[in-house]
Amino acid sequence: MLSLKQSRCLFQIPSNTVYLDGNSLGPMPIAASAAVDRVLRQEWGQHLITAWNRSGWFTQPDRVGNRIAKLIGAEAGSVTVGDTLSIKVFQAVAAALALTPHRKLIISDTGNFPTDLYMADALANVLQQGHQVKTVAPEQVADHLSEEVAVLLLTEVDYRSGRRHDMKQITAKAQKLGIVTVWDLAHSAGAIPVEASGCNVDFAVGCTYKYINGGPGAPAFIYVAPRHVASLRPVLAGWMGHNAPFAFSRNYEAAPGATRLRVGTPPVIAMAVLEAALDIWEQVDLADVWAASEQLSNLFIAEVEKRCPSLVLASPREARQRGSHVSFAFAEGYAVMQALIARGVIGDFRAPDILRFGICPLFNDESDILSAAQALDMVLKTGEWQLPQFKQRQAVT
Amino acid sequence: MLSLKQSRCLFQIPSNTVYLDGNSLGPMPIAASAAVDRVLRQEWGQHLITAWNRSGWFTQPDRVGNRIAKLIGAEAGSVTVGDTLSIKVFQAVAAALALTPHRKLIISDTGNFPTDLYMADALANVLQQGHQVKTVAPEQVADHLSEEVAVLLLTEVDYRSGRRHDMKQITAKAQKLGIVTVWDLAHSAGAIPVEASGCNVDFAVGCTYKYINGGPGAPAFIYVAPRHVASLRPVLAGWMGHNAPFAFSRNYEAAPGATRLRVGTPPVIAMAVLEAALDIWEQVDLADVWAASEQLSNLFIAEVEKRCPSLVLASPREARQRGSHVSFAFAEGYAVMQALIARGVIGDFRAPDILRFGICPLFNDESDILSAAQALDMVLKTGEWQLPQFKQRQAVT
Repeated sequence: MLSLKQSRCLFQIPSNTVYLDGNSLGPMPIAASAAVDRVLRQEWGQHLITAWNRSGWFTQPDRVGNRIAKLIGAEAGSVTVGDTLSIKVFQAVAAALALTPHRKLIISDTGNFPTDLYMADALANVLQQGHQVKTVAPEQVADHLSEEVAVLLLTEVDYRSGRRHDMKQITAKAQKLGIVTVWDLAHSAGAIPVEASGCNVDFAVGCTYKYINGGPGAPAFIYVAPRHVASLRPVLAGWMGHNAPFAFSRNYEAAPGATRLRVGTPPVIAMAVLEAALDIWEQVDLADVWAASEQLSNLFIAEVEKRCPSLVLASPREARQRGSHVSFAFAEGYAVMQALIARGVIGDFRAPDILRFGICPLFNDESDILSAAQALDMVLKTGEWQLPQFKQRQAVT
Repeated sequence: MLSLKQSRCLFQIPSNTVYLDGNSLGPMPIAASAAVDRVLRQEWGQHLITAWNRSGWFTQPDRVGNRIAKLIGAEAGSVTVGDTLSIKVFQAVAAALALTPHRKLIISDTGNFPTDLYMADALANVLQQGHQVKTVAPEQVADHLSEEVAVLLLTEVDYRSGRRHDMKQITAKAQKLGIVTVWDLAHSAGAIPVEASGCNVDFAVGCTYKYINGGPGAPAFIYVAPRHVASLRPVLAGWMGHNAPFAFSRNYEAAPGATRLRVGTPPVIAMAVLEAALDIWEQVDLADVWAASEQLSNLFIAEVEKRCPSLVLASPREARQRGSHVSFAFAEGYAVMQALIARGVIGDFRAPDILRFGICPLFNDESDILSAAQALDMVLKTGEWQLPQFKQRQAVT
């Protein structure tokens, strides 16, 4: 096993940069280069089409799924990898609705990531069966659960505030009422200990380019509780989820386990990068990572509040109620973040007014936290964030 | 511009290998390595999250879409890239059905690639609105078009026989009857001249890992005729198709043009490989490639028929009725292909009995054709295909 001091050396982070945005895009595992090079030059380059068998490309999504399963407390064979998180939300919500055919209500919270809601809305719209997506305040979710609700679609950790739902408690309450749960673990996987199986969740989805460090546009994952597999008829019935894809039969017959949630041809090159990232996860203990996150996050809150009284903590103060990022509200947050990035401290901004800082102990340590708080202090004290170049919005914020 | 003799030098093909499977997985453009390395070490490694703006990752799917548009005769802004072909089929068929709300019939042909049919079946199934997917013999498609048909879903070039539909004529007939067309260009793009706009097609989809040489699991593309964009309400309403994804608004508002058919976070690393492949396409004339394909394919048919009378041509004899691969039927085709691969000639097998050979003049020349025919002759003459090791089926055939 590696210490967190050692794991830091496994990522490429430019000198003079404090990277507090691993919650949006994890940094590059140094081993990613060699991993991709092997796939390109040896596997694709040398074996061409035969690499689908020889290099194990065909079965890779399920193998990688099993590696991710370990990070989210899921059973072997219950997770597969591919597509994007949006697509996986669509698959999961459609499968969940099929389990509750007589109910029409999908409940989510107002803090959920918009694409999850868009995908559910669009599904409800195309079904023309009277389904409705209703969002309630995060803290009122439990109160809105009833026997009218078909599906509960929640992101465990809020992308803006970092507020964390009690997955176990909410799932238990939902299930007593016959509600099927879909948990989005985008800001959980690789950040906090998750027990998908232990919490008895029905479906879970997530991305791998944040805390898992799988690279820009890395594939998503989907978990299905083994008890639901047999009845699951995929809404996206692609050939890679077929029981015998190379029989090319006219009718779709779903593969066993989570494999049936595979859709099209898998993203082989992207998966090589993801595997390099997962190699690091095999050498660290997520409980250690989470313990360090708690400590570093608390330190960051204390340092920022001490130095920058104009910033308002937008995350829960209690670490156990947060994920692994900390947010502060400030009306001109966009410009402040741009000025901070110009000083080499990279966090990000989320509309309308959130400065967001990911705390990733795999590569962040106490010196990062202190440097970031100090730089933030300087940006505000000098007023340099008011320079015109920091106010001009870019496409991606 | 490059000659085809020159373009061949731009791909990594092992010595002593004749590669006739570019219709399944194109070989590696040598420039792919450097392209990926740049994305990894410079863009991701150095710029981290800021690469979404600085390196143009955010807008890349539409830029790459415009490059593909040139290969399929489509208007700028009408093509975008992402996901897999299966997903793009789902999007296109759903959008097509929305244009014909009072019709329930989806017509395809029995030679269509199974995943296209599975995706359409599953869509019909989840809609519960009485939609039905009906397949007819390829040569009878035109006769089955009527005012009852909602959508015509066809693959221009049959993945087994190589038979090619008359896209212009069939589309014209379909449109006179109010049918919306969805063309799968998997075996067309980069193989034969396509005029998506000139043929007035409604939707087209395709993959980029075959003739375009974009790499294993490279993203798919989708074309929407500009006349349909305004009314197109995406069934997969992901945030990257939103008009202002970083406003994080509660409601989905579709972006202009084909951009609204983007779904989730784009596969940045895979797109770098694809761009390296498209760089080659910018330097050759597809009409030259197609003319060479015709000549080489005719030569291959003549050579095989002369040497191997036990093989039966399973493709149209007339080049203009084919795509860019040639197939022969043989009951023990699987074992024959394995034996042929052992001799360094790589084609593939498609159940139940098809030996398939892709002819890709970007990297295939006359010597490949003659070597392949000779090797096939030897495999059959010696009977070496009857050795046990060649009969054992692998996962991917």
